[in-house]
Amino acid sequence: MLKKINHIGIAVKSLEDSIPFYRDQLGMNFEGTEEVAEQKVKVAFLQIGESRIELLEPTSDDSPIAKFLAKKGEGVHHMAYEVDDVAAALEQMKQEGVRLIDETPRHGAHNSLIAFLHPKATGGVLTEICQAGKH
Amino acid sequence: MLKKINHIGIAVKSLEDSIPFYRDQLGMNFEGTEEVAEQKVKVAFLQIGESRIELLEPTSDDSPIAKFLAKKGEGVHHMAYEVDDVAAALEQMKQEGVRLIDETPRHGAHNSLIAFLHPKATGGVLTEICQAGKH
Repeated sequence: MLKKINHIGIAVKSLEDSIPFYRDQLGMNFEGTEEVAEQKVKVAFLQIGESRIELLEPTSDDSPIAKFLAKKGEGVHHMAYEVDDVAAALEQMKQEGVRLIDETPRHGAHNSLIAFLHPKATGGVLTEICQAGKH
Repeated sequence: MLKKINHIGIAVKSLEDSIPFYRDQLGMNFEGTEEVAEQKVKVAFLQIGESRIELLEPTSDDSPIAKFLAKKGEGVHHMAYEVDDVAAALEQMKQEGVRLIDETPRHGAHNSLIAFLHPKATGGVLTEICQAGKH
């Protein structure tokens, strides 16, 4: 069902402070930034192999990322796996008894469709499934 | 310098309890387990695309993973990026001023060579570089 790791979301206080490590010291391919209003975050995309690192900076104190930073500090916020069809994958997971946060897909960065599984189902790692946006 | 995400290390209390989610519910290819005595862990490998999830269970209370679990609970412990030559990559990073935990490579699972960068250098994410073992 899962094709690959689409991205790893890392919560950071500041994109400006965090991008240089991944872009200049590790040498990842910086692809740009995007604001995802629904999540109240600014996101920077850095390509590595078939996957991406997504650095997430909150744009508001009530952003889920602001709450994560306050509780846990900077670090991996979620793992995202790519599927062909998020709605179909959610249906299959529901039948297998996987606990979900999102019962139906919602919109993510890059015009993608995404859904989050429940952390209780995944051993403490917030897990997203996503379907690439049509370009 | 980095070729791909080699693996993501996830600290878990029990491999037995954690493997079913990744293997059966997400459908990753379970490749087996290995004990890494030097790190005092048992590791389960699950392949996803060009990368792996490595579930890490401590084999001793003084394992670094036992300490991580006590402090932070289950979750992503480290990110590992693959390079052709760990020693050369470390040399290059030292010249760029990246803080390191390991100045020289040490042995990891699957007969690999690995080295950890300092979390202070990497925005809170413990970061490993690794070179695949010769088979």
